[in-house]
Amino acid sequence: MIDRFHLDKVIALALEEDMPLGDITTDSLVLPGTRARGVLAAKADGVLAGLDVARRVFEIMDPGVDFHPFFRDGDRIHRGDRIARVEGDARGLLRAERTALNLLQRMSGIASRTAQYVHQVHGLPVRILDTRKTVPGLRLLDKYAVRAGGGGNHRFGLSDGVLIKDNHIVAAGGIGPAVARARDRVPHTIRIEVEVETLEQVREALDSGADILLLDNMDLETMQAAVALVGGRALTEASGNMSLAGVRAVAETGVDLISVGELTHSVKAFDVSLRFQALDSAPG
Amino acid sequence: MIDRFHLDKVIALALEEDMPLGDITTDSLVLPGTRARGVLAAKADGVLAGLDVARRVFEIMDPGVDFHPFFRDGDRIHRGDRIARVEGDARGLLRAERTALNLLQRMSGIASRTAQYVHQVHGLPVRILDTRKTVPGLRLLDKYAVRAGGGGNHRFGLSDGVLIKDNHIVAAGGIGPAVARARDRVPHTIRIEVEVETLEQVREALDSGADILLLDNMDLETMQAAVALVGGRALTEASGNMSLAGVRAVAETGVDLISVGELTHSVKAFDVSLRFQALDSAPG
Amino acid sequence: MIDRFHLDKVIALALEEDMPLGDITTDSLVLPGTRARGVLAAKADGVLAGLDVARRVFEIMDPGVDFHPFFRDGDRIHRGDRIARVEGDARGLLRAERTALNLLQRMSGIASRTAQYVHQVHGLPVRILDTRKTVPGLRLLDKYAVRAGGGGNHRFGLSDGVLIKDNHIVAAGGIGPAVARARDRVPHTIRIEVEVETLEQVREALDSGADILLLDNMDLETMQAAVALVGGRALTEASGNMSLAGVRAVAETGVDLISVGELTHSVKAFDVSLRFQALDSAPG
Amino acid sequence: MIDRFHLDKVIALALEEDMPLGDITTDSLVLPGTRARGVLAAKADGVLAGLDVARRVFEIMDPGVDFHPFFRDGDRIHRGDRIARVEGDARGLLRAERTALNLLQRMSGIASRTAQYVHQVHGLPVRILDTRKTVPGLRLLDKYAVRAGGGGNHRFGLSDGVLIKDNHIVAAGGIGPAVARARDRVPHTIRIEVEVETLEQVREALDSGADILLLDNMDLETMQAAVALVGGRALTEASGNMSLAGVRAVAETGVDLISVGELTHSVKAFDVSLRFQALDSAPG
Amino acid sequence: MIDRFHLDKVIALALEEDMPLGDITTDSLVLPGTRARGVLAAKADGVLAGLDVARRVFEIMDPGVDFHPFFRDGDRIHRGDRIARVEGDARGLLRAERTALNLLQRMSGIASRTAQYVHQVHGLPVRILDTRKTVPGLRLLDKYAVRAGGGGNHRFGLSDGVLIKDNHIVAAGGIGPAVARARDRVPHTIRIEVEVETLEQVREALDSGADILLLDNMDLETMQAAVALVGGRALTEASGNMSLAGVRAVAETGVDLISVGELTHSVKAFDVSLRFQALDSAPG
Amino acid sequence: MIDRFHLDKVIALALEEDMPLGDITTDSLVLPGTRARGVLAAKADGVLAGLDVARRVFEIMDPGVDFHPFFRDGDRIHRGDRIARVEGDARGLLRAERTALNLLQRMSGIASRTAQYVHQVHGLPVRILDTRKTVPGLRLLDKYAVRAGGGGNHRFGLSDGVLIKDNHIVAAGGIGPAVARARDRVPHTIRIEVEVETLEQVREALDSGADILLLDNMDLETMQAAVALVGGRALTEASGNMSLAGVRAVAETGVDLISVGELTHSVKAFDVSLRFQALDSAPG
Repeated sequence: MIDRFHLDKVIALALEEDMPLGDITTDSLVLPGTRARGVLAAKADGVLAGLDVARRVFEIMDPGVDFHPFFRDGDRIHRGDRIARVEGDARGLLRAERTALNLLQRMSGIASRTAQYVHQVHGLPVRILDTRKTVPGLRLLDKYAVRAGGGGNHRFGLSDGVLIKDNHIVAAGGIGPAVARARDRVPHTIRIEVEVETLEQVREALDSGADILLLDNMDLETMQAAVALVGGRALTEASGNMSLAGVRAVAETGVDLISVGELTHSVKAFDVSLRFQALDSAPG
Repeated sequence: MIDRFHLDKVIALALEEDMPLGDITTDSLVLPGTRARGVLAAKADGVLAGLDVARRVFEIMDPGVDFHPFFRDGDRIHRGDRIARVEGDARGLLRAERTALNLLQRMSGIASRTAQYVHQVHGLPVRILDTRKTVPGLRLLDKYAVRAGGGGNHRFGLSDGVLIKDNHIVAAGGIGPAVARARDRVPHTIRIEVEVETLEQVREALDSGADILLLDNMDLETMQAAVALVGGRALTEASGNMSLAGVRAVAETGVDLISVGELTHSVKAFDVSLRFQALDSAPG
Repeated sequence: MIDRFHLDKVIALALEEDMPLGDITTDSLVLPGTRARGVLAAKADGVLAGLDVARRVFEIMDPGVDFHPFFRDGDRIHRGDRIARVEGDARGLLRAERTALNLLQRMSGIASRTAQYVHQVHGLPVRILDTRKTVPGLRLLDKYAVRAGGGGNHRFGLSDGVLIKDNHIVAAGGIGPAVARARDRVPHTIRIEVEVETLEQVREALDSGADILLLDNMDLETMQAAVALVGGRALTEASGNMSLAGVRAVAETGVDLISVGELTHSVKAFDVSLRFQALDSAPG
Repeated sequence: MIDRFHLDKVIALALEEDMPLGDITTDSLVLPGTRARGVLAAKADGVLAGLDVARRVFEIMDPGVDFHPFFRDGDRIHRGDRIARVEGDARGLLRAERTALNLLQRMSGIASRTAQYVHQVHGLPVRILDTRKTVPGLRLLDKYAVRAGGGGNHRFGLSDGVLIKDNHIVAAGGIGPAVARARDRVPHTIRIEVEVETLEQVREALDSGADILLLDNMDLETMQAAVALVGGRALTEASGNMSLAGVRAVAETGVDLISVGELTHSVKAFDVSLRFQALDSAPG
Repeated sequence: MIDRFHLDKVIALALEEDMPLGDITTDSLVLPGTRARGVLAAKADGVLAGLDVARRVFEIMDPGVDFHPFFRDGDRIHRGDRIARVEGDARGLLRAERTALNLLQRMSGIASRTAQYVHQVHGLPVRILDTRKTVPGLRLLDKYAVRAGGGGNHRFGLSDGVLIKDNHIVAAGGIGPAVARARDRVPHTIRIEVEVETLEQVREALDSGADILLLDNMDLETMQAAVALVGGRALTEASGNMSLAGVRAVAETGVDLISVGELTHSVKAFDVSLRFQALDSAPG
Repeated sequence: MIDRFHLDKVIALALEEDMPLGDITTDSLVLPGTRARGVLAAKADGVLAGLDVARRVFEIMDPGVDFHPFFRDGDRIHRGDRIARVEGDARGLLRAERTALNLLQRMSGIASRTAQYVHQVHGLPVRILDTRKTVPGLRLLDKYAVRAGGGGNHRFGLSDGVLIKDNHIVAAGGIGPAVARARDRVPHTIRIEVEVETLEQVREALDSGADILLLDNMDLETMQAAVALVGGRALTEASGNMSLAGVRAVAETGVDLISVGELTHSVKAFDVSLRFQALDSAPG
């Protein structure tokens, strides 16, 4: 999944933010050594993502915690399903609770929404993608959740993909010079993608040898013409305020990829509860 | 607003995540010294939040940037409004664009949603609050945005407020001992809040001298009875899956505070565009 | 106690400062694998604090260390008492020694001094508190030590408590507006404390609904009058160059709280020795 | 003085600790743009240290601050002396105040105490030194303050000096082998110091070619004999619970150096006040 | 060039490593305020790289430094050439000197060596590339230097390029499934490169639709056959202990790319001197 | 060896640089739970250094790894020798491979080159030393490798040694005042080294009581005269573009120390291969 040292930094950030000076309620009221057991349960239907992240939050606050999941990331779950059982030091669990839930609920929310989009285009040779419209610091988790929901990832950031937009084209003096210059300067392992808005630009981009065409905010008719024009010589990606309702029509134009900002910029948290079932005082 | 050294850490995290190795497109295509000017414009109606955050992102990527806002945080804005003008080094602006927008859109989304809740309870002596259901690393920004939208903040985390819940009560052996122990151990500057679910618990909490009662998931009738029972001897806070539609009825029970997780856990990004108007090559 | 990830950062800072480039003496003279055993012993009478901190320093330098304490934090100890036995890798122990002692001696020094103040006010319904006059980076440890010595904690910093002073009052246009504005803007979980120097200000603060009154540098007579005037409607805190000799007289005025800067700003280290008893070369 | 990037890290640590979430009092009550002017004044007699540190704290919270000192580090100051004037943004100054004072008071406390020791040995060819008994994270500042008070610095940590103690001697199989091995393995730029407790050990250390002898906890008579025995062939350093009262007698034995743990492990804060004289609201 | 916040982290690391506790020689001997001027001069022939890096080191140690370069990165320079003039605070310059030179010499060493390889293949349609065999922490600088020398960059790391090697092929069950799976899972912006050692594998890779073929340790004859077999349907990259003497023969096989580990794993520092010409004491 | 917390920071830096966003090839193609075994083998003759560093890289990526070395640092190894066997999680091993090799190859390269210099001066009472011309961030590892190759270390940085150069002498007003001032201000544990270029300066330095003389860029004749002049009253160090061919002649002048920048500024990586022998899919 996500590399441990990356994950630990994200979680440490969250925990330090939530308790720069400890958990004063729990520190006052729960004796060291007290044990607790809880159950994470779904309060809605959706797709699970973030189990390992939640587990790691608990582990960091209680290295001896026993976290037992009943599902795996990517699984479809339903309201009332028990997602996991967690048992360990009560102080640690109470400290970890909110942070673990915040992450699990966001990631499952992303996976669930992605799955809805993927379901809408069922049967069509198209892939639903995320964008860079993620929450600062959580991009890897957000993108992992998109994959868990059946989607694919667009580039991770500005360093690992080339996307030539308006301003780049102006700066380089046209689509042709822009593609040529990028080809000359970026690692050969990276494809060149160009944002186009008109059929004229589609032609220019094809002539320049672009690998991927981002069809930006085109109406369906133009998009279909663009796909026909490309004729398989490059990948085509549709982009621009995709709605769940409209995504199938877009897919039917024949584009290879559809990127959806909403997947990560407007996440609806997937509701998960954590109920503690027992709290036993330690013997000593 | 938000302390510079805190803000800079959040932004640095976002920028490093977005470009661990630079912006390979811009580095290839835009010459050093090229200038650009852009306009941030609203693509929806709502309440603005995060202008200083966006400004700081641009500043970090181009210390000489000229960022000129036309509104202030907390202002109501409408689709088409020009929010700010930004002018500076093209490379810096292009690098900063996505990160600045991601933050501004999230914060304005939170402010706008908060304002809707606040509007619903107009005229009633109640305050709309946020919760700890924020995105890891962004709590201060999320909470700032809630204030910009007219709401108030609940505690910032586990270190600066006492909220005694089920498990704490069990661990301490009842509401009375829990409140007493917390009172004895936390700084005197902090009030004691107790989560209660029944009128019986309301009575116990009052007897224990709790300062605030969190009425958790109560139906409206019980809530009203609870408020009557309290009779001003403590603050009352309603909590638990508040919906925009239902919030006024809750407010009419007479509670002092209503906390709404949705404000920060299920944010709908407020759509802002950034259009570059001119790209002039530097003379030298 | 203190959260592990906080504690580890403090200790890492100390260790890196003490040996940015290793311990060149020990590296040259002690073979890897050599074992050592030592005893921490008190060289004065006082109250112990920081055992877990010292233990953690040794653990970080030797994960396999056996640290066996004979007391607990908050225990009264006497000159000659064996505090703990530590056994492990000689290189690790020698590296850890100074850092562990520096922390343990400071914390026990704070606890011991706090206990003296607490003893002075024995039988009176007053609490001895610390202040923000701590050493940068060690506030949590300093405040923990105050609790170990029987004292209580004032706010941890500027983010978790409101203390309205002179300048704030001037800026807000009077005590009344200041309290009202703070009440309106800070989380409802936090009490409002106001610094007052005269009986006139005491009245104003009471009228404004302040929760706590900081009686700053008042003479005993005025303080007594202030306490009478308050009549239980707010908490009262005495502050300003409290001496051990004078603290009982202050307490007898009836104030609820006495904050003492000296507890943490002028710490006398509690003398602890670490004697190594045996140094056996490893077999292999 | 102290390198900026080191100093900034220490100060950032302190500020983040003091306000992980901002200064909620000042944020609520002082309008952005308000100006303030304050005067730092001595409330006791002593030696000043840490002016640049205090200045930097203010600068970090308000880059445009005007900090005007009336003295320099190392200057002797008296109760009532105005130390510096500071003028700038009221919010920044109020945030910086406690951190600046905490550091300035500690450093001046160290310098003042050091100066007392130095005064005690006036006229004798001996130097007063600090030890590694400093507060974690503040070693450089502590040691700077010792120099400001007229003392000298012992090694900064385990990486930049060799001090062969009991356990090292046992591990190496005697003083001779220990010194030889250290000489062979540490950079030639570093002298070899050996801790000795008896005249017998003094002889061994001299024979081994040690550069410096640490006379540990010797009575005055033995110390005098040790100095005679050494006869200038090595530096001699007296160590072990030096008191201000006894330090001259120790110096009169003829040792070259006297190290005093108390200088940094038991600091009495030097009292400095910061009074704000004016608070003007910004025009806009 | 290289993003400021990345560059500053690299330099801070270097400076902290070089002077965890300041520059004790300079601090003792050079008065604050002393000015110095120096000239960086080439002591060999080669290609310059790292001017901005060196400049930034000086700037960090002396924000007011005047650094005036006489060349630009990528320029060919000769023994005796004055590269830049630097003037500023003597303490800052002396502190910065070694770190600035270490970086400039390494980067110019890489650029110079790269230029030799590029020169060897002059006139042939091939590009000389670097590898991931860089020094930990300096990859961006190393890769920048390769570009300055006229070479190109291979992928920056494991996150921004796909290179399917032996073990990946075995794990995936063959080249075909490996390429298909990678295509399915990595962002569409990234090309798929496969390492092949035999003509058989070349065929498999072509059939699988691989975008790039890494011809690993092939003899010249096989390589030529491979290039012919590929026939332009994919990019070809030669790799494996390329020597300066042999690189032209490799290039003549018709490969598109040649990656050379030596460029960064066995760097010969380019000799640059820094002579200070004047040292004027400050007036005040 | 090297302190764990230092080592881990270096390695984390390298790993984060190499995979800010994971290893997209391995993540796509190698199933979690797959096992792998590999052998590190020498592809040249030389001296080994960095085994623990390489081991730690693997451990960080797979805490359960079994790393079994067949040699120890400082051992002479030959082309074809198996250096170590590593077995563990395939994903972890593939991620760690490049970073482990980069470090091991650099360190063994340094050790091997150092051993060649040491061999050249065999039988003469001289020590081969490194300099501060190391790679930023790797100084401790570079210097460790020099020791593994039989060399010694010069000062680690500007904080732990005094080296008075031209500019310092000018600033202090001569060698005499410079040495006296340094003696007065740096810890007594540190020797004073002075850079001299003429016999006249040698005399001055001796008169000033300098502990070590750095004979900078002297011809052999002058150097011999200098050594004679010194007559054992100080250590002598030869410095300045030492070549392997010329080092013996320099040693024969009788200098105590010879420092060689090339050891660390122009490292030739020692070639080590890592071949994976088996890749078994996990059962579950």
